[in-house]
Amino acid sequence: MSSFDSTEHPHRRYNALAGEWVLVSPHRSKRPWQGQQEEPESDQRPAYDPTCYLCPGNSRVGGEVNPKYDATFVFNNDFGALQADVPTGGINEGGLLRAEAESGVCRVICFSPRHDLTLPQMTVPAIRKVVDLWVEEFQTLGARPDINYVQIFENKGPVMGCSNPHPHGQIWAQRTVPGEPAKESVQQLAYFQEHGRTLLSDYLKIELEKQERVVLENEHFVVLVPFWAVWPFETLVVSRRAVQDIAQLTPEERDGLADIMRRLTIRYDNLFNISFPYSSGLHQRPTDGQEHPEWHLHMHFYPPLLRSATVRKFMVGYEMLGDPQRDITPEFSADRLRGLSEVHYKGAVE
Amino acid sequence: MSSFDSTEHPHRRYNALAGEWVLVSPHRSKRPWQGQQEEPESDQRPAYDPTCYLCPGNSRVGGEVNPKYDATFVFNNDFGALQADVPTGGINEGGLLRAEAESGVCRVICFSPRHDLTLPQMTVPAIRKVVDLWVEEFQTLGARPDINYVQIFENKGPVMGCSNPHPHGQIWAQRTVPGEPAKESVQQLAYFQEHGRTLLSDYLKIELEKQERVVLENEHFVVLVPFWAVWPFETLVVSRRAVQDIAQLTPEERDGLADIMRRLTIRYDNLFNISFPYSSGLHQRPTDGQEHPEWHLHMHFYPPLLRSATVRKFMVGYEMLGDPQRDITPEFSADRLRGLSEVHYKGAVE
Ligand SMILES: O=P(O)(O)O[C@H]1O[C@H](CO)[C@@H](O)[C@H](O)[C@H]1O
Ligand SMILES: O=P(O)(O)O[C@H]1O[C@H](CO)[C@@H](O)[C@H](O)[C@H]1O
Repeated sequence: MSSFDSTEHPHRRYNALAGEWVLVSPHRSKRPWQGQQEEPESDQRPAYDPTCYLCPGNSRVGGEVNPKYDATFVFNNDFGALQADVPTGGINEGGLLRAEAESGVCRVICFSPRHDLTLPQMTVPAIRKVVDLWVEEFQTLGARPDINYVQIFENKGPVMGCSNPHPHGQIWAQRTVPGEPAKESVQQLAYFQEHGRTLLSDYLKIELEKQERVVLENEHFVVLVPFWAVWPFETLVVSRRAVQDIAQLTPEERDGLADIMRRLTIRYDNLFNISFPYSSGLHQRPTDGQEHPEWHLHMHFYPPLLRSATVRKFMVGYEMLGDPQRDITPEFSADRLRGLSEVHYKGAVE
Repeated sequence: MSSFDSTEHPHRRYNALAGEWVLVSPHRSKRPWQGQQEEPESDQRPAYDPTCYLCPGNSRVGGEVNPKYDATFVFNNDFGALQADVPTGGINEGGLLRAEAESGVCRVICFSPRHDLTLPQMTVPAIRKVVDLWVEEFQTLGARPDINYVQIFENKGPVMGCSNPHPHGQIWAQRTVPGEPAKESVQQLAYFQEHGRTLLSDYLKIELEKQERVVLENEHFVVLVPFWAVWPFETLVVSRRAVQDIAQLTPEERDGLADIMRRLTIRYDNLFNISFPYSSGLHQRPTDGQEHPEWHLHMHFYPPLLRSATVRKFMVGYEMLGDPQRDITPEFSADRLRGLSEVHYKGAVE
């Protein structure tokens, strides 16, 4: 029998950051697809939409009126999944029925007053303002004694459950640390205790040497398709310096983050020549008052599309009941993304 | 301040079976939806489709011809994610880049020769034949030394990535135990070691006393919306007797499983008067040669629809980066499902 070849044979890869496995089936990418077709988001939007509850000057569901903002704008989600004033309490029956009250805040962040833009169509200085607002929010929310984790994220595109195409993201900040960053905490702490360096510093070092999965770099950040990527074109944005949260970034590093986000999302749009859907978000240290030297700031991009603008990867049956599974290798995806232009397919910006 | 009320206040619930948490936001179900609309599967299909590669007598991609089967039919997936003859081997660089060859088998099971049926439209004796085939496959695959877990599942509906509406399910059987059953193993073992009874026996006892989340019962099985349900109308089918796998079911219990699956899926179809999409699957003991007295056979149903035939729950941004989140309480969902008829909205069967 021939020897094991990860570009050909089914295998499992270990997610060192989360402590989980993914099943990789490189040979499976050729199967025919007769299933559901996605409808890409319409590319034609007005710069201002009088019916949009996120455009400047318009009113929202609760009756509040948005200011005529000219850069970013943040407010409390009118239908937040979390609320600040929840009575404490819970349920526990034999350890089998367990519930705990949860308190927190849900915020909405408009990235731009322009209804027709998305991050890849904005300038670096404009994206920098988004980064600055994230820092501010992280600091203000994180300083509250009732907030121990601040989750900053964006759902882009209808296929990612986004209900309004106006460029915006969200922040859910809460009392407990959610499961995903909690898993990363465990893995990062164990690594840090053993090696005295963050897990992602050492991982980044390996990836920079190999250059097999690196997509793009600037002075302060590196974008790579992680060795353990689940989604077809999943990427990880890692800061070169081992900082614990965005508030620790220098002004130059904030510019670096804006630059890398812009260049990455332009490549994404250029992959299938559409506004590329994804969920993205920052993972950083819990705001529980501890220092967390084991934490290393990073940003995940989870895009669902697999083969074209209309064929996505479904995380269903086996994936829900067994393990996540992917059909193309992370190395193949990195190669595709690396080969794309950094000039947006629609041409000039703003 | 008022006291904590789980029908009103945001809270987290603990999944005792998997050892994870879900965020429940009861107040959030009223938010308006302007996002993506799903297209329900067409209800009009011929009993035989000459272009379907699962219909009796038709040929498949590889050139093989299906037999003229009159009940069920099973074959090796022509595009399986797993393969039997994979060379062993792997990668390990500093614990950060870790991969292992994985071997296994992917099987496809046609539930019926009729292209136009689905489980809720089949008779109990016809579904019983599906159960019998599951048992056979579990035994044959599970007996192989290179197979330590047998995952039986179904993806139903285009929204669940199903690429052919012909009624069918799949089996992925492999060398390692995937993450989901592995988590359930840990939880069940800890409980069994402490109490000498299976976790699900004790959990079932509580639910049967309360009757708050029970949807339907027969002599051998109970269907309930678990206290920790993630998907809006998620259910758990639990055997009353603490058996470790389907091969241990008596003939009467196999009939019981067929009966409860039929009645549950009829209720699902009647919820929004459409062929209701879901992923479902059995979780049972690993086939590693051990007895696993801690394991308790059960079946998960994960349906994505939330409010109507066209509005689904999206597990995106916060859910991918934080924790799963739901908007209606499991008790509300159980109540809805309990109130539905067990006569299929389309009328008589077969
Ligand atoms: O095997 P199928 O039906 O072609 O594919 C479907 O089920 C598989 C197992 O859950 C998934 O990996 C695929 O993403 C999904 O489209
Ligand atoms: O808050 P939105 O944009 O209305 O809603 C979207 O993002 C949320 C956070 O990921 C999800 O819970 C919702 O399912 C999704 O539709």
